[in-house]
Amino acid sequence: MRHIDEDTITQAVIAGHAAARDERLREVMTSLVQHLHAFAREVKLTEAEWADGLEFVAECGRRQGGPRPELALLSDALGLSTLVQALQRRSATQGTEPSRAGAVALDAVNGCRAEALVGEPCHVRGRVTGADGRPIAGAQVQIVVPASATTQADTQRTDAQGHFRARVVVPLEQPIPHDGPVGRMLDALGRSPWRPAHLQFSISAPGYERLVTQVFRQGDRHLDADAVFGVRRSLVADWVHHGPGRTPDGQTSALPFTTLDFSFVLANANTTTGDSP
Amino acid sequence: MRHIDEDTITQAVIAGHAAARDERLREVMTSLVQHLHAFAREVKLTEAEWADGLEFVAECGRRQGGPRPELALLSDALGLSTLVQALQRRSATQGTEPSRAGAVALDAVNGCRAEALVGEPCHVRGRVTGADGRPIAGAQVQIVVPASATTQADTQRTDAQGHFRARVVVPLEQPIPHDGPVGRMLDALGRSPWRPAHLQFSISAPGYERLVTQVFRQGDRHLDADAVFGVRRSLVADWVHHGPGRTPDGQTSALPFTTLDFSFVLANANTTTGDSP
Repeated sequence: MRHIDEDTITQAVIAGHAAARDERLREVMTSLVQHLHAFAREVKLTEAEWADGLEFVAECGRRQGGPRPELALLSDALGLSTLVQALQRRSATQGTEPSRAGAVALDAVNGCRAEALVGEPCHVRGRVTGADGRPIAGAQVQIVVPASATTQADTQRTDAQGHFRARVVVPLEQPIPHDGPVGRMLDALGRSPWRPAHLQFSISAPGYERLVTQVFRQGDRHLDADAVFGVRRSLVADWVHHGPGRTPDGQTSALPFTTLDFSFVLANANTTTGDSP
Repeated sequence: MRHIDEDTITQAVIAGHAAARDERLREVMTSLVQHLHAFAREVKLTEAEWADGLEFVAECGRRQGGPRPELALLSDALGLSTLVQALQRRSATQGTEPSRAGAVALDAVNGCRAEALVGEPCHVRGRVTGADGRPIAGAQVQIVVPASATTQADTQRTDAQGHFRARVVVPLEQPIPHDGPVGRMLDALGRSPWRPAHLQFSISAPGYERLVTQVFRQGDRHLDADAVFGVRRSLVADWVHHGPGRTPDGQTSALPFTTLDFSFVLANANTTTGDSP
């Protein structure tokens, strides 16, 4: 009879799925089992700790289906979302870097328009091109201003030169939702739940990969400590503060306002390399 | 500004909790993050696969609080429960090997008594001693016959010589509950959901570690392929089949019956080494 103990259990589990029809599934599960077991061995995980861990994951799982996907938030907070995204990313020259950790699901904010938010006006001027530098006309650009209470979404289309304009409000630094298990975890780890201020862009056009990314503000105090590791150097921009006067949309503002200019490059839909090893 | 990419993300996450007050938590989370990231890198996990994985765990988590702890079942099926238990186990000479993977929670079967089950009678004769070989009197012995529909529990106390007797029914081989996500996973992996036939014992006495273990039947066809890796060599016993005649409780049976003799050794309560590295 096969002897199963601390040393042989890993091989026993892996041998159990040697006949799996799906070769990729076998590869993924073999690696997962090896690494989970190596983790347990390395820290000599106790049964009490393991039980606590299962309960923690269960609590996240129970909340996943609700308005706040807590398990995705856990993945974000452990840097896994960013890592998986980086692994799948095509070469850096192919397009603007995506950043989806902590991204707000657009379907959750539909119907909440600019007029619902108050704050300093932010005039966004953008351009969307392909990797060859040619403008993409008619691209759909959705902009989300993440905010805990009144997330704002705005949708535009690029013109013939690939330009779009939008008027939103200057986003504020925001914590991730931290009144649940992930918040408790961050607190126990001495980590901050805050994210730097950012605008979220979702840009799509036929023939191109849909881009979901976030543009951050140079000088934000949370840039180096984003709770979900969403900041990329290439996504940090100068947000220019203006006194009262003429705004980019040709009007005159009696109040201060901010402008942001950013260019987005969409990768061709057929250049993704994420699925092949 | 710190640059975060595929290579630097792991260190960034770990650095984030360098100030955690709880040193053990910091140690566990550092190892967990390293191994989860190493897994994702090793298989070049795609975003679609990661999303599927999160949804799978969420589904297990949602079921965890119900009558069937699916996340614990997942842990069992991946060999993690057995590994963690083996890591925590005191030296082999200290007591009978525990086996809790796939164990049925006793509070879930309370009130379902012997008379509720039909099957060939199984007369269990056991002895409970300490590691020094001395009998333990008054130990509480709970026996569970795992069965998908009519799990049976029986509670006895040892006499002055540490002996106990119980009459249950011969357990049948059983699959783990496999109509949920873990069952789908086993199917996709080409793994069987079956467990070998076994009786589950939970034995407790003041001054000793509570023992939860399972006793298997020599010759069972599933011994080498237990879906939850609960089998230990030291827990496989001869179950003796008898024709009609005199039974161990002094009666005469007109039907065949089975006898099982097994000795259990309880470890002293203060000899656990699991919590110290």
